[in-house]
Amino acid sequence: MFLAEGPQAVREALGRPGQPGRPGQARAIRELFVTTAARSRHRDLVAAVAATGAPVSEISGELMAELAQTVTPQGLLAVCPFIDVPVGALISAAPRLVVVLANVRDPGNAGTVLRTADAAGAAGVIFAGASVDPYNSKCVRSSAGSLFHLPIVLGVQVADAVAAMREAGLAVLAADGSATLGLDDPGLAVRLGRPTAWLFGNEAWGLPADLAALADERVAVPIYGRAESLNLAAAAAVCLYASARAQHGGAAQHP
Amino acid sequence: MFLAEGPQAVREALGRPGQPGRPGQARAIRELFVTTAARSRHRDLVAAVAATGAPVSEISGELMAELAQTVTPQGLLAVCPFIDVPVGALISAAPRLVVVLANVRDPGNAGTVLRTADAAGAAGVIFAGASVDPYNSKCVRSSAGSLFHLPIVLGVQVADAVAAMREAGLAVLAADGSATLGLDDPGLAVRLGRPTAWLFGNEAWGLPADLAALADERVAVPIYGRAESLNLAAAAAVCLYASARAQHGGAAQHP
Repeated sequence: MFLAEGPQAVREALGRPGQPGRPGQARAIRELFVTTAARSRHRDLVAAVAATGAPVSEISGELMAELAQTVTPQGLLAVCPFIDVPVGALISAAPRLVVVLANVRDPGNAGTVLRTADAAGAAGVIFAGASVDPYNSKCVRSSAGSLFHLPIVLGVQVADAVAAMREAGLAVLAADGSATLGLDDPGLAVRLGRPTAWLFGNEAWGLPADLAALADERVAVPIYGRAESLNLAAAAAVCLYASARAQHGGAAQHP
Repeated sequence: MFLAEGPQAVREALGRPGQPGRPGQARAIRELFVTTAARSRHRDLVAAVAATGAPVSEISGELMAELAQTVTPQGLLAVCPFIDVPVGALISAAPRLVVVLANVRDPGNAGTVLRTADAAGAAGVIFAGASVDPYNSKCVRSSAGSLFHLPIVLGVQVADAVAAMREAGLAVLAADGSATLGLDDPGLAVRLGRPTAWLFGNEAWGLPADLAALADERVAVPIYGRAESLNLAAAAAVCLYASARAQHGGAAQHP
């Protein structure tokens, strides 16, 4: 099990639909800890958790500060069962956009990419190889609730994840700053509209040649200025939105 | 003056061309501190700094650990003069893409946006209103050298920055998740190709209505999934690359 902190994460955990890959885990929150102050601030939310049958324990601010991983805890802490699914469950949903993280180590980066993948309409994120644990509190936090929005897959090797994506009919594109094909290259436009898995490498050393070689195509986000590269989260945002734009043709939901 | 840590930052500081707005500051590095180990690892770089006449002091690893802001210092620490320019100097270069940060507080976010702005070919970044100090060590570090690549402007109010951009002939677009106009809207395509200043708000509360109202247009990065929003650095990456793509027509430099 893992901890989800703050009203947003608790709300998202509660609202999470049952996952096909993990039957029998009906209760999305196993236990909730709450301070008196937070209970009065989030009365409806706490009542909704209690209504699922999960025990709700009121604890002191001091104890919350001990349990919570944040510097300024928001007074709500949910114990949640793991929610990752097997890669087969992800594939069975006929995904059109998937993210494969290859040895992404920084939890803040991984959580941000998860959030961006959600925003771009991705069907799932695979934490492959030696990638960070998505249940890491910093990753949960930086995902801003997206951890509960789309299926995540853990514990697969990068090569196996890529093979599974290809078998499911997705083209595999590796984000690689040293590639000769640029993301804005006219030759890529049509391909971006097709089902795609994006492969992103480690934030410091990128994708080693053997992993980049697994992809159908290596694609660079073009550099128009003097920066050597983009950071991982920024590169992922540009790549995923290029796919989203091509796949949706500008038909997004606006408020 | 401020501190630039590590070989990359020192190299970029050294390679920085003279800024039009700050004449008479010929020496980009005033003083360099280096450990014995780093000196032998980066012999050419240290020699190049010494050749400019800047004093080079060898210090112990313990002292470096005290002076450096990073957990694992890389053994090189340069004292650099401030490099920001007046807004007039930025305008005089007839910029086609400018970033205006409106009360962006997190140094890591600000540095990442600066790096992304550089990559997208922006002509400068304005740290407006109550935005973080770009010389903050975390901002310098997360800019990955880009602080030294493009002009930065400090100490202007957001309204004044926007007015200056408009006077210089740039359209001002505010990134605002609640806007009805989406970034991929066909109606925006032509406008993105024209000189543009992007206005980005605080990472937590976005752009308040009075600041968003300063822009010619409020533009939302479309949300295709269930995320409530993108984080600042991801939204900025998507917006700035939309402009770069429209302005350059895919004619970026690839390695």
